[in-house]
Amino acid sequence: MSADVVTVPVALGDRAYDIRIGAGLIDTIGKSAAGLGARTVAVVTDQNIAALHLDRALRSIANSNLGAAPIVVPAGEATKSFKYLEQAVSGLLDAKIERGDIVVALGGGVVGDLAGFAAAVTRRGVRVVQVPTSLLAQVDSSVGGKTGINTAHGKNLVGAFHQPSLVLADTSTLDTLPDREFRAGYAEVVKYGLIDDAGFFSWLEKHWKGVFAGGEDRVHAIATSCRSKASIVARDEFENGDRALLNLGHTFGHALEAAVGYDGARLVHGEGVAIGLVLAFRFSARLGLTSEEEAERVAAHLKAVGLPTRIADIPGEVGDADRLLELMTQDKKVKAGRLTFILARGIGRSFIAPDVPPQNARDFLDFALKS
Amino acid sequence: MSADVVTVPVALGDRAYDIRIGAGLIDTIGKSAAGLGARTVAVVTDQNIAALHLDRALRSIANSNLGAAPIVVPAGEATKSFKYLEQAVSGLLDAKIERGDIVVALGGGVVGDLAGFAAAVTRRGVRVVQVPTSLLAQVDSSVGGKTGINTAHGKNLVGAFHQPSLVLADTSTLDTLPDREFRAGYAEVVKYGLIDDAGFFSWLEKHWKGVFAGGEDRVHAIATSCRSKASIVARDEFENGDRALLNLGHTFGHALEAAVGYDGARLVHGEGVAIGLVLAFRFSARLGLTSEEEAERVAAHLKAVGLPTRIADIPGEVGDADRLLELMTQDKKVKAGRLTFILARGIGRSFIAPDVPPQNARDFLDFALKS
Repeated sequence: MSADVVTVPVALGDRAYDIRIGAGLIDTIGKSAAGLGARTVAVVTDQNIAALHLDRALRSIANSNLGAAPIVVPAGEATKSFKYLEQAVSGLLDAKIERGDIVVALGGGVVGDLAGFAAAVTRRGVRVVQVPTSLLAQVDSSVGGKTGINTAHGKNLVGAFHQPSLVLADTSTLDTLPDREFRAGYAEVVKYGLIDDAGFFSWLEKHWKGVFAGGEDRVHAIATSCRSKASIVARDEFENGDRALLNLGHTFGHALEAAVGYDGARLVHGEGVAIGLVLAFRFSARLGLTSEEEAERVAAHLKAVGLPTRIADIPGEVGDADRLLELMTQDKKVKAGRLTFILARGIGRSFIAPDVPPQNARDFLDFALKS
Repeated sequence: MSADVVTVPVALGDRAYDIRIGAGLIDTIGKSAAGLGARTVAVVTDQNIAALHLDRALRSIANSNLGAAPIVVPAGEATKSFKYLEQAVSGLLDAKIERGDIVVALGGGVVGDLAGFAAAVTRRGVRVVQVPTSLLAQVDSSVGGKTGINTAHGKNLVGAFHQPSLVLADTSTLDTLPDREFRAGYAEVVKYGLIDDAGFFSWLEKHWKGVFAGGEDRVHAIATSCRSKASIVARDEFENGDRALLNLGHTFGHALEAAVGYDGARLVHGEGVAIGLVLAFRFSARLGLTSEEEAERVAAHLKAVGLPTRIADIPGEVGDADRLLELMTQDKKVKAGRLTFILARGIGRSFIAPDVPPQNARDFLDFALKS
């Protein structure tokens, strides 16, 4: 293990925990679980990640003389379903995981959300250690305690707030990540600059090649993202206020993911977010909140790294404005029939707009579908 | 509505709520939901209760000018499953229930546990008002926030802590309850006397006919039970300590329910608890903690009201001691391989015994199966 481990604390009172970021942290799973008092560690992972990292995780657990139970689910967004929730829970009960034991979520966002939710509801709550292996999971989904699955109604409409006891972000796992997936995760990194840190966005414009290459720039980008997320989560754990800022780009993004039926071949989550970020800025510009130039600066950076920025970049049909609006109103961020968007007065100046008239959104979607 | 409504507060800080007990409270559902700021009220109920009380509930909601969405599930323990959880959640999403809205759980323990769990996980948590219509639900399951479903591994192994925003115990619904169900619920009333209130147990020995007949004695028994439960829940919401006392009779009871495959024709929950209470006292006597006389006094009272008190009272086979022990070790109250029982030093003197050797339990079960 590298000596260079950065620790980011998440200040949540009696649910406080650390995010550790560095190369080789998978080898510390067993020691960490033992430190948390577990006797048995269930490792939930997917088939792809199992082939790459499961052996190391199990060896680490065995080295700490703890019982290990691997639970392997298929890779892909479709795994975030009631079917695999039931399967994961059943695996935890088969392994006789008790309240003092630990569930390890070893994988990307899908595994983290599914395993976290399964841990939240098994025996009404067992502890989870998130071991994110994708950039998206390391900078976003593994931190903050949101867990859940999708239904035919939309993404993440079913789930629980269940904070992890620890996050181990092993940056060496990113070396085996497919380019497309790394790039998609990068959209979430950009998001933190757009929310409230214009300096970070400028830094990314200059240093993104370093972030993609690995090393110091990458660790800096991940740690900055985690600090930003930890700060927002600490002041609004249950999304009654500021936490909604993290949904910048997501109201549009989720609707687009739903529109392609969560078909990862056409659109993965981070790509939906990339298009969503641009749409949020263009919508803000159209509403006169920010300039077209700011919106185009956001689009230009995302395009430069190779991310999609327009609805038309998605292969195949996504439906018309009415269909997308319908998918948005089923999104859980609806309040009493009005639409909540995260809009921006400029880069690093995002805010919650709690009652956007649906007609404005519809008109904008119509425009966005044609451009 | 009767003017005689008793209110029992549950002191849980920012999750505090009231239990209202009295005749006719179903007619106040709409007003209560409006007071809580809901726009839409989903009413989850089962087919039996729907025929008896759903119209009144919907009328009350309509009278307060709120939207209403009834979700009707089959009656019976088998409904506490992943299948019906998914169906209930889907119904809530179809009804576009938002975070500010209210889910009403109108029914007995099964509906309360299922609807409460569905509310807990829909949009990561919407509020629930429990409207218990069985004695068991009024004195036990509707209070304290435990929700959940069963799996092949056992009862209530999957769920969430999700406190209701209000409990409306309409005592007039008990008039339509089948005798067997009322009697089963009475086992939970007796439990409160056995845990820490010998005076209440003595009162029940004298007044149980009044409790069964209805009127003042019944309201007193329900309110005393709710106060007892509220007090225990307030000092240990998440079952890290004293709350386990409420499991008196339940470790045995759950194993017996699992042994009959949750077949309500053979054994309903309260009957399992009745046998479990007697077994807990007889086990305590066998371990020299209390006298045989105390155990027989418990058995005599439960038998007097017509409840089963021995494993042999269950029709059909339940398996041998090893099978029952295996079913107990899968129960969630296991800690690191040892068995936790709630035992007693006498009536009203129960305590948590956190490490009973499995062999002692096995020997006792062997004895209990033959007696």
